Amino acid sequence: METARLVWSRLPHSEEGELDGVELLSNTSNRNGVDSLDYEVIENYAYREEQAQRGKLYVGYNVGVKWFFALLIGIGTGLAAVFINISVENFAGWKFSLTFNIIQKSYVAGFLIYILINLALVFSSVYIITQFAPAAAGSGIPEIKGYLNGIDIPGILLFRTLIGKIFGSIGSVGGGLALGKEGPLVHIGACIASLLGQGGSTKYHLSSRWLQGFKSERDRRDLVTCGCAAGVAAAFRAPVGGVLFALEEVTSWWRSQLMWRVFFTSAIVAVVVRAAMGWCKSGNCGHFGSGGFIIWDISDGQEDYSFEELLPMAVIGIIGGLLGALFNQLTIYITRWRRNYLHKKGNRVKFYCSKDKEYNDLATIFFNTQDDAIRNLFSAKTIHEFSAQSLLTFLVMFYTLAVVTFGTAVPAGQFVPGIMIGSTYGRLVGIFTVNHYKKLNIEEGTYALLGAASFLGGSMRMTVSLCVIMVEITNNLKLLPLIMLVLLISKVCILLVYSIWIDVLQNVLTLFPSQAVGDAFNEGLYEEQARLRGIPLLESRPKYEMRKMTAREACGNQKVLSLPRVVKVADVVSILRSNKHNGFPVIDHTRNGETLVIGLMLRSHLLVLLQSKIDFQHSPLPCDPRGRSQAIRHNFSEFAKPVSSKGISINDIHLSSDDLEMYIDLAPFLNPSPYIVPEDMSLTKVYNIFRQLGLRHIFVVPRASRVIGVITRKDLLIEEEIEDSAITELQSTSVRGQRHEKRLLVRNADAERPLLSGILVQDTDHTLS
Amino acid sequence: METARLVWSRLPHSEEGELDGVELLSNTSNRNGVDSLDYEVIENYAYREEQAQRGKLYVGYNVGVKWFFALLIGIGTGLAAVFINISVENFAGWKFSLTFNIIQKSYVAGFLIYILINLALVFSSVYIITQFAPAAAGSGIPEIKGYLNGIDIPGILLFRTLIGKIFGSIGSVGGGLALGKEGPLVHIGACIASLLGQGGSTKYHLSSRWLQGFKSERDRRDLVTCGCAAGVAAAFRAPVGGVLFALEEVTSWWRSQLMWRVFFTSAIVAVVVRAAMGWCKSGNCGHFGSGGFIIWDISDGQEDYSFEELLPMAVIGIIGGLLGALFNQLTIYITRWRRNYLHKKGNRVKFYCSKDKEYNDLATIFFNTQDDAIRNLFSAKTIHEFSAQSLLTFLVMFYTLAVVTFGTAVPAGQFVPGIMIGSTYGRLVGIFTVNHYKKLNIEEGTYALLGAASFLGGSMRMTVSLCVIMVEITNNLKLLPLIMLVLLISKVCILLVYSIWIDVLQNVLTLFPSQAVGDAFNEGLYEEQARLRGIPLLESRPKYEMRKMTAREACGNQKVLSLPRVVKVADVVSILRSNKHNGFPVIDHTRNGETLVIGLMLRSHLLVLLQSKIDFQHSPLPCDPRGRSQAIRHNFSEFAKPVSSKGISINDIHLSSDDLEMYIDLAPFLNPSPYIVPEDMSLTKVYNIFRQLGLRHIFVVPRASRVIGVITRKDLLIEEEIEDSAITELQSTSVRGQRHEKRLLVRNADAERPLLSGILVQDTDHTLS
Repeated sequence: METARLVWSRLPHSEEGELDGVELLSNTSNRNGVDSLDYEVIENYAYREEQAQRGKLYVGYNVGVKWFFALLIGIGTGLAAVFINISVENFAGWKFSLTFNIIQKSYVAGFLIYILINLALVFSSVYIITQFAPAAAGSGIPEIKGYLNGIDIPGILLFRTLIGKIFGSIGSVGGGLALGKEGPLVHIGACIASLLGQGGSTKYHLSSRWLQGFKSERDRRDLVTCGCAAGVAAAFRAPVGGVLFALEEVTSWWRSQLMWRVFFTSAIVAVVVRAAMGWCKSGNCGHFGSGGFIIWDISDGQEDYSFEELLPMAVIGIIGGLLGALFNQLTIYITRWRRNYLHKKGNRVKFYCSKDKEYNDLATIFFNTQDDAIRNLFSAKTIHEFSAQSLLTFLVMFYTLAVVTFGTAVPAGQFVPGIMIGSTYGRLVGIFTVNHYKKLNIEEGTYALLGAASFLGGSMRMTVSLCVIMVEITNNLKLLPLIMLVLLISKVCILLVYSIWIDVLQNVLTLFPSQAVGDAFNEGLYEEQARLRGIPLLESRPKYEMRKMTAREACGNQKVLSLPRVVKVADVVSILRSNKHNGFPVIDHTRNGETLVIGLMLRSHLLVLLQSKIDFQHSPLPCDPRGRSQAIRHNFSEFAKPVSSKGISINDIHLSSDDLEMYIDLAPFLNPSPYIVPEDMSLTKVYNIFRQLGLRHIFVVPRASRVIGVITRKDLLIEEEIEDSAITELQSTSVRGQRHEKRLLVRNADAERPLLSGILVQDTDHTLS
Repeated sequence: METARLVWSRLPHSEEGELDGVELLSNTSNRNGVDSLDYEVIENYAYREEQAQRGKLYVGYNVGVKWFFALLIGIGTGLAAVFINISVENFAGWKFSLTFNIIQKSYVAGFLIYILINLALVFSSVYIITQFAPAAAGSGIPEIKGYLNGIDIPGILLFRTLIGKIFGSIGSVGGGLALGKEGPLVHIGACIASLLGQGGSTKYHLSSRWLQGFKSERDRRDLVTCGCAAGVAAAFRAPVGGVLFALEEVTSWWRSQLMWRVFFTSAIVAVVVRAAMGWCKSGNCGHFGSGGFIIWDISDGQEDYSFEELLPMAVIGIIGGLLGALFNQLTIYITRWRRNYLHKKGNRVKFYCSKDKEYNDLATIFFNTQDDAIRNLFSAKTIHEFSAQSLLTFLVMFYTLAVVTFGTAVPAGQFVPGIMIGSTYGRLVGIFTVNHYKKLNIEEGTYALLGAASFLGGSMRMTVSLCVIMVEITNNLKLLPLIMLVLLISKVCILLVYSIWIDVLQNVLTLFPSQAVGDAFNEGLYEEQARLRGIPLLESRPKYEMRKMTAREACGNQKVLSLPRVVKVADVVSILRSNKHNGFPVIDHTRNGETLVIGLMLRSHLLVLLQSKIDFQHSPLPCDPRGRSQAIRHNFSEFAKPVSSKGISINDIHLSSDDLEMYIDLAPFLNPSPYIVPEDMSLTKVYNIFRQLGLRHIFVVPRASRVIGVITRKDLLIEEEIEDSAITELQSTSVRGQRHEKRLLVRNADAERPLLSGILVQDTDHTLS
């Protein structure tokens, strides 16, 4: 019966729309984009064969388009990364040559010029962000994570954000701030993917018609996942790390089909970046060499390690856990302080960048050679190249700077600063270890690497993907078990501190907002950032308290506003005005007078119907289920809005008093089978359904009166039966044919008995009246 | 209300039990192991505080035990891998030294001795498998995949299977068959994990009491996932590859929490193997050097590649796709042929190993140096070390042998044979490439590696994990993009061949079972093996046909057998005898006479109740909901059977005629909130729910009459609200306290109103009568 079910479109507000867990490739063959009961009837009577034909074709077309898009995302992100790196390196090159020329005449003048250039670069970045693309500030990873978790933050995937992110990154990294360009590259990849998915930016007239079929929410989300992987792959030249990062860190759910495409995108990025670098080697890119891309090859580092070294390595892990968690904590305080004081006073929301100016002169001394600094810190065969005193000074200053720079109004990645901090204390521990175990073959560079891993682990809490990225950027597989060990120790350390903090310190330090402190200790940097920005991420684990609650309790005493099947326009308007709910159950009545939940109607779809007005009817009777009128009045894209636009508001719609007296039959536009849970299901169970299927609404319903059937694994193994019979009979073709016919017969029988239109009574608007 | 909901135990038959998508750590604190309405009432009245206290403790205890088990799995699997490798290398060493001594006197005698030793080893392996542990035959990966997909194949996770697998592998690999030990190691890891999870083997009296808390199906499944990763990590010394393999290839669903533990297990394996090899280097392990473990270091291989080389590499990909798919296809024919002819004639089911004998003399020439052969094939700086003719001969013979050996009654991995075949034709292509592009710096070893990747990709269809494993065993990260490229071409090639085959050849070659051919071309080796063994894996993608079906249609015309709340023993027996269903809806009546589905009762739990008889009651009235009698009559482990035992059958239970006249109140033992879907939900949607949540039963229910509430993201963000208020008020502790109190009040209010016992009427057995 339910042919070509709707893949629910999601609308731009943060709580609207539905992430559907179901992949239906044939959605484009569904003419009006919404599935409906009436539509099914049409389908069953007249168009089954034609649809089946179209369906197969569309499947092929869609799969092809998906892979083509993956290719484009890979190429686009790779080129963006190359462009940023070439620009940054060239700015750095010009800066140095200019300064070098002037400094030979006057030291002070050179220094001033140097500072002025950096300030100009940083302020150009700040200007771009504050005036042009405010959504491009920060790393962007928390926002993308939120998007893939089901929350749409307006503006994050716009074309202007993409442009702002690219040029903002060039300015802030070129200007020498304590920032990296890795987070921004992830955001750039996601923007490219999203813009491709909606066929270009509508505002900038880049839309192309044939790509607009890609309106399904799930397809878009898959593309953005590919974009994230491409970003990481481009930033670190770590294709496997990119795939893992996308799966582990940004997506809420995971399918093995998606992995293939993500993988392909990463591979394309690797090839593009490699090709571009090969082209640049022949001198076409100005000052750009092979720098910029984060590759610190330590493949000639320490070959072996002895068990005595496990102790200092554990120490590194502990330091990493503590400093990482402390970093997160301090950034929380800084961000709160900014929010509470600077914002109130300054009145320019995103422009708390006086800090940048203040520290910039100092910062420039360190930062312009971040990549080189790390390369030196990691370097092997260089025992005691750095003195302990200078490392310690550097560590304290850089740590402070990184904390302060965090959250400023420029595109900012935390990866390179994290590696800087980590490798500094790692090298410090390495120095002490070399002094202590004099006879062993110890490389301080290895310890610097482990330090970097431990700090990133302590701060970002990535595990497998972090490991793989570290291995890929250092190009040394032998250190893998050590990196794993350090990451685990860092994690355990955080957990211990967390429980001590919660149990003991909470009672002592009532001055601090201890709940938040504990959470920060137990959460990664991205989760914490998301929390500070008010992005309501659903964590992977349900809260402990949920175990004691049922679905009904979670709903609280909320009044459920439901709509009748044929609803008066005035009622729709008053309901939409009275609340901010994004989904409404639609209730109908059977001939016996019993009520029946016939589906879920989204606010956004109601708004589209109110705006277009073409579905208004004078009669309060349901429209003819066999008419094809609804089907051709709308096309799919009307219901699927561009990702980051504001969408329609009820206040934008102007209805005459005649309009208000009209009726709408909702049956063609509702989602006829929303997800349901029984009222006394445990909330943990509901939480898992919600998160694993990526839902937006679940209906809590009373216990059922009867069970129509029990679906088990056997019922879902359709082809398997054929296969079995094929083995025994060796005549599968004919068996298959029979089976197919049988199924058609079943469907024919159903078609003779229209599902709802038979049992629904004709006057259906007394739910509201 | 629903405190400490049951984590459903799964019983040993292949369709019984429930994989619950919900993690409830406090399951051990649930005294009788089953959740029930009555139990909740008790809970709410008297034991809430005590339970809350215990709950917290148990959470800590459980998390600790889980990590400790991950540690033990890592150590156990690592040691098993070391033991197998040491044994195999020592057998090989003794064999060679003996043969070498004899061959100096007589060539023929030496050759005969050599063959005899190999035959003895292979036959000891065959004997172990056929007589002692039949479930240890083959690679074991399809069975483990099935287990994690929700199907329990009897015997695969027993202690005897573990022992059989270890010694069988030693025999078959030591005896020089065209097999690897990687698949078996995955099975070994899974066995160790499963045995730990159930507290040792019950049969061999290794159970220890304190570990038996680990009865939840989900925990066991997590442990087995860790075991799989440990197996791969041990086989290839590829810890990251192990994690990815477990996630990509074997599990049906994925949680980021689990990743941490899988990761830890792999790290432990790496450390254990490394430590053992360090110990062996000092000469403690006889003939064992560092061989055995699959590490073919080609880090000094080709540094760079030019774009002209992409053509031969694409050719390798195409060959890989074709030969890999053909391999799968041929093994299907061989297995079918064996099943149809050998089994019928020979009558010894698992002993079709006359083939081994026949080919063994030839095979021994090749196989004893499989690792060395691969090392030579991969080796750099050795242009034209092999002639094209010898490689071609080797390829044809080895390919044939691998096909024939496939599926024999010994533990068999396909990884090493796959690498052998792939690297042979890869090197062949490399030879031609070197001849053609004479001026380029081309290493034939690189081409051999790409060939190996392409063949494994064509045959096993792993992607990201395969990539990482290839990189980890060759210790060369620079080839990663090339490996990715080759894998993708191999995949695309298969898809093309598949569609051509389906569309064209199907009509021509009606002699072959073409449906099966097409499927095999489109499926990986493990899926195909699983299919041949009758393991009903749910694929990651729902079938195309499902789009046009609803949940109701999937149930077909099946009669739903439901039980009343208080059921007569005789009725239970007759229902259980009359069908093989594994779950029954339990229906009760309200005071108004309406029916109400109150839960799901599992066959296995009914059998336990029938066997123990202690819950039989004379009265057909529901038992007192406040009594604690049910709660203490059973303990949790009664309902959770050991993983691989046969379980109870209805025929094993003997009931007197008095017993048959008694009644059972099912309310304390049922699952009160099974998963439900509305009758007209699309089957693709149902499929995704089923697979993503890992379910065993879904109830198809009629459309609900009303909606109690709509759960949205906001309702699931309990802590977030506190956090937000903390930001503004900086007084989160007090806020939290208030909130907590409020929630308790809500629950108290509910507690005053027992959910079902109030609305249920007293006589409840007319569903059956």
